[in-house]
Amino acid sequence: MTDHPLAIGVLGGMGPAATIDFMAKVLRHSQRGAAREQDNVRVIADSNPALPDRNAAIAGTGPSPAPALAAMARGLAAAGAGVLAMPCNAAHAFADAVRAATPLPFVHLIDEAVAAVRRRHPEARRIGVLAVAGAAEAKLYERALDAAGLTAVTPDDAARAAFMDAIWQIKRGELDVGTAGVRATAHHLLDQGAEIIIAGCTEVPLVIADGELPVPLIDATDVLAERTVAYARGEWGRGA
Amino acid sequence: MTDHPLAIGVLGGMGPAATIDFMAKVLRHSQRGAAREQDNVRVIADSNPALPDRNAAIAGTGPSPAPALAAMARGLAAAGAGVLAMPCNAAHAFADAVRAATPLPFVHLIDEAVAAVRRRHPEARRIGVLAVAGAAEAKLYERALDAAGLTAVTPDDAARAAFMDAIWQIKRGELDVGTAGVRATAHHLLDQGAEIIIAGCTEVPLVIADGELPVPLIDATDVLAERTVAYARGEWGRGA
Repeated sequence: MTDHPLAIGVLGGMGPAATIDFMAKVLRHSQRGAAREQDNVRVIADSNPALPDRNAAIAGTGPSPAPALAAMARGLAAAGAGVLAMPCNAAHAFADAVRAATPLPFVHLIDEAVAAVRRRHPEARRIGVLAVAGAAEAKLYERALDAAGLTAVTPDDAARAAFMDAIWQIKRGELDVGTAGVRATAHHLLDQGAEIIIAGCTEVPLVIADGELPVPLIDATDVLAERTVAYARGEWGRGA
Repeated sequence: MTDHPLAIGVLGGMGPAATIDFMAKVLRHSQRGAAREQDNVRVIADSNPALPDRNAAIAGTGPSPAPALAAMARGLAAAGAGVLAMPCNAAHAFADAVRAATPLPFVHLIDEAVAAVRRRHPEARRIGVLAVAGAAEAKLYERALDAAGLTAVTPDDAARAAFMDAIWQIKRGELDVGTAGVRATAHHLLDQGAEIIIAGCTEVPLVIADGELPVPLIDATDVLAERTVAYARGEWGRGA
């Protein structure tokens, strides 16, 4: 028998601000069921910014982060984590390596984001995806949406390049110009008929929130936080 | 020879929002020396809200958190931390247990906050301290300030009780009423002639910042973040 709540192990640092955003969202969901500080869910986070770049690895132009991710998963398990989550969309191209590294359950960011789209917006068919080049090249959202009978609406090559520039700007802390770039990409997806937009890169919700676009924004980081807290508490069935 | 940067191990969860605040401040100091995401300092955080209440332990009315803190320190060391920090002022009543648990260096929040007061405001003599009952009962700031030839200005019993209420409100997420309570305590210290105020409880900088009071506010959490990043990078001598 498993004792709940489980400690949440976070494979983080991709980037570090996104890990902090994820932890803040975990805390917000955790506080809903916590009368006292002591009732909050334990979080063990390894924010390791030195992991090899995911985009370069997926493109075949850089080393794979898989061995380092597997080592992080083992370290988190050894430190007491009972369930793992990884607040980086592109890194889910290496999810199999994380899953194979320990016997711990792994809450899958992409799968949970797509499931949230279906629960919250069952009428939507054309789903915009704000994701980096590596996530696109690995077809992470494209495949998950296709399996759900939904169509991924993605940037063309020029818009993707501009989006990548915006994400690097956000990672460097240049938030104003990065925000403008993310908004421009979102409007490019709206022009193609996106009915919903998934913030499918963990830097996106650092600069744009649901309610700021003409269509709903699914914050995949927040979905991951909510679902991981639910798993940690043994309340996995209840999804919002 | 030690390889820099060292990974920062965080004994956290006291409370969880304060740990996230500390990580955000570590990132801000880390980004100053980082051209790329990969250049940021690695942070391994154990945010464990289930630790026994520090105030009750110091008052002798509850179990000691020392064994759990020592176990966290060992877990962080095993996970790869090279230097430890604990963003909770009152928990420093148990700093010896943390230090004894591993051979790792430990950056001491109280000592660094008092050192920052001396560096930044060498003319100040009466130092207000916004700290919880446990920290006061253990005389953490009182002793460190006295050793530096400075006078601690602290709340009387009624003001301390009101301050404790405010801190519990902040921990429950009731920020408006908690902020008002913290401000009232700060003005109580100003009435006693405090020339500087130390935010000597990690919930305080969640609701009040330097520049919002008639005297300078020393954010002990931010000082700890700055000094721990400096230690991790092998730049310990340079204090701001």
